[in-house]
Amino acid sequence: VDSCRGWETESRPLIFVGHKTQERGQKVSKKQVKIGLFGFGTIGRGVADTLESNGNVIAEKTGVRLSLKEIVDIDENAGTDVPLCGARFGKDAGAILNDDSIKIVVELIGGVGAARDLVAECLKRGKHVVTANKELIAKHGPELEALAREHAVRILFEASVGGGIPILTPLLTCLRANRVHRMLGIVNGTTNYILSEMESKGASFSKSLKEAQKEGYAEADPTNDIEGYDAAYKAVILSAVAFGKFVDVASIHREGILGISSEEMDFARQLGYKIKLLAVLEDGADGVSVRVHPALLPKKHPMASIDGVLNAVYIDADPIGPLMFVGRGAGPAATSSAVIGDIIALATGCVDSEPGSIFKSASLVPKEKISNAFYIRMQVKDRPGVLADISRCFSDLSVSIASVMQSTIEGDRAQILWLTHKTPEDSFEKALEHISGMKSVYKIISILRVFD
Amino acid sequence: VDSCRGWETESRPLIFVGHKTQERGQKVSKKQVKIGLFGFGTIGRGVADTLESNGNVIAEKTGVRLSLKEIVDIDENAGTDVPLCGARFGKDAGAILNDDSIKIVVELIGGVGAARDLVAECLKRGKHVVTANKELIAKHGPELEALAREHAVRILFEASVGGGIPILTPLLTCLRANRVHRMLGIVNGTTNYILSEMESKGASFSKSLKEAQKEGYAEADPTNDIEGYDAAYKAVILSAVAFGKFVDVASIHREGILGISSEEMDFARQLGYKIKLLAVLEDGADGVSVRVHPALLPKKHPMASIDGVLNAVYIDADPIGPLMFVGRGAGPAATSSAVIGDIIALATGCVDSEPGSIFKSASLVPKEKISNAFYIRMQVKDRPGVLADISRCFSDLSVSIASVMQSTIEGDRAQILWLTHKTPEDSFEKALEHISGMKSVYKIISILRVFD
Repeated sequence: VDSCRGWETESRPLIFVGHKTQERGQKVSKKQVKIGLFGFGTIGRGVADTLESNGNVIAEKTGVRLSLKEIVDIDENAGTDVPLCGARFGKDAGAILNDDSIKIVVELIGGVGAARDLVAECLKRGKHVVTANKELIAKHGPELEALAREHAVRILFEASVGGGIPILTPLLTCLRANRVHRMLGIVNGTTNYILSEMESKGASFSKSLKEAQKEGYAEADPTNDIEGYDAAYKAVILSAVAFGKFVDVASIHREGILGISSEEMDFARQLGYKIKLLAVLEDGADGVSVRVHPALLPKKHPMASIDGVLNAVYIDADPIGPLMFVGRGAGPAATSSAVIGDIIALATGCVDSEPGSIFKSASLVPKEKISNAFYIRMQVKDRPGVLADISRCFSDLSVSIASVMQSTIEGDRAQILWLTHKTPEDSFEKALEHISGMKSVYKIISILRVFD
Repeated sequence: VDSCRGWETESRPLIFVGHKTQERGQKVSKKQVKIGLFGFGTIGRGVADTLESNGNVIAEKTGVRLSLKEIVDIDENAGTDVPLCGARFGKDAGAILNDDSIKIVVELIGGVGAARDLVAECLKRGKHVVTANKELIAKHGPELEALAREHAVRILFEASVGGGIPILTPLLTCLRANRVHRMLGIVNGTTNYILSEMESKGASFSKSLKEAQKEGYAEADPTNDIEGYDAAYKAVILSAVAFGKFVDVASIHREGILGISSEEMDFARQLGYKIKLLAVLEDGADGVSVRVHPALLPKKHPMASIDGVLNAVYIDADPIGPLMFVGRGAGPAATSSAVIGDIIALATGCVDSEPGSIFKSASLVPKEKISNAFYIRMQVKDRPGVLADISRCFSDLSVSIASVMQSTIEGDRAQILWLTHKTPEDSFEKALEHISGMKSVYKIISILRVFD
């Protein structure tokens, strides 16, 4: 018997599964909550597997028996060769949408086509939604939040950032006494794996990418990961959750790791740094800054030791100070932990009674207000005075140099590495424009931001 | 106006602060929740400070205005020289106990004397309790949980382990789909600071302790920290929260860091390890194992890089895999984040509607079922055959040796370092008893457990 109490009333929209009386020492009986699942790919199967293997543990901890009732996938063969955890399998979305006993729907289709329509339809029909779909939330968070509010249901998406690692929920619950100032995220396992391979083995980018594909950490078309789109979606979600500020994903600074060579890794190492693809978020007096780009991190920075497919989020907030969460950022097993965690939150009523909006539109800090330290590698003419000329140009345009290293020389060419002090992005750009136009400068090989 | 709705009914015991109607885009009005605070020492003042400085941020995020109404401290001068955040200050506990408008009480007295009585009294009077008191929860968790259940209120204690770091709440919410197998915790900042000082500066234990006292990281009487009592309380709480298993704190294996010398640090470093004081928890077929002792961790283990006063908890669970949370484990600022996080959870109803019991009595795995790798340093007679004799003795008693290193020699004395493979604790003890009785063995200098 499905005994979802309170569901019908508008003032207590959540599913509460419980007893009329509480007595000391009384054994908690197991009540059932029925779930519908859209999308039965790798992650969907992971969720079904965990519901199967850990169903008893979950029931014991929560007093709730999570029952997967309907699985819908566009591919009618998806459900033929695997255990379905007692669910019915089919192609027809109506099996979930029209079943009033299903109060919680899990969306694991991905993308913003069918997923968007089905999620919206579920919310309109008074069903809670749990999703791992970062693109959907990063692009349509505001409209889905509004729709959920209108229909007195919730949309939860812990699994959309950092796989299984609890990041969004702690920010939205335990950490609410804080002002979050800054976050650094290693939120894409594929690129972190590739960079770690390049770092530890001196392998080339393309060889490391192939290795990642062989290991199942990168897709056949890796664009979404290596060009930073995936990390950008997650950065936008983190900004909403940590700052309550929603920015347009198309407008943020996004750089992938295509430009990183193993040579670059070597230079960074010589200077005491590691190169990581970071989501960088700041909230200050001038507004919010949300960026995704590779950066040099000092080896002793806690985030520098996060290697392989691990994900991590580093938070600086007041009063708590620095915090870091580390774990597996992807994969069906880890992701199922977050998806089912969200289902349990809904099934046990462990969510805010009246959540505030986190998708409030915000504009990005203008570029001239963002300061970074920079690493620049360039090829120059190897003759007296060049170093002095370039130094003067930096100085004339208010870029202060922290250190300079002349490295290899081939023929009449020398290579110079510069580390600047913190400089507004626009001043730096202007200086670089001048310098790259100098006759004695052959080529700006690479520019990377540097954190401390 | 205090508009705590739902408070009066038994079936919805939580404080819900909200609206009758929810309309899209509607501005959330700020409702007030009144709080009483017992204990106005360092942490209490930290909580008042954060409520003062971040009150607006909290109201914006939650729709709730947290209002500190009464502060009670046994020392009537405690409230004279600091801002009280609009609260009244006094010595009389009745100011909180008898005020029906106070629905949430924060206990920051510490210990198990007055704190225990007042917490019990608050629960009996239908007031929720938030506490940072690890000793109270570790010793009286079961009775306080039962009392809270009986009176349909909650007792929350996120701040009791890991200071501000969200650990208990994620385990009790986001991670409930998991079976937790093992946890390693660096949960005492004082001892971690001392060990880090010894490691990085080669300083002696007593010098490092004095430094810790100077910095305010250790108390004048440091017994509670350096002998592992504080960590043991936290280990007992972690066992309840992660496994739902409560063990008697007096019965667990507890070793402090008094026996650790900077010489030991050196040897460990030479072998590729760091020494950390760890809470070690395991839940398996044979029952639960909860221990606190120093251990050798390989330098590349994520927990090995947690230095200074930082705390960290490493979790291995299924399906999520390994997870690590890092942050400041103590201090008024960080702790206030967790205390206020708990207050907000109660004020917004963001807690389980029907929580299961986490303080179920459990017995500890018997010693013979626990296996560890060991590090042993001993002083022996420097003559041919001694190494072979000891090796044979280990082998005869089923202790398998992973590596052996003969280090310094003074006069006729040699020093030998052994690393064993995993061995049941009782076999190891038996072997050591034999070996320490050998004529050629002068002294067992130290024994430490080794993790990988």
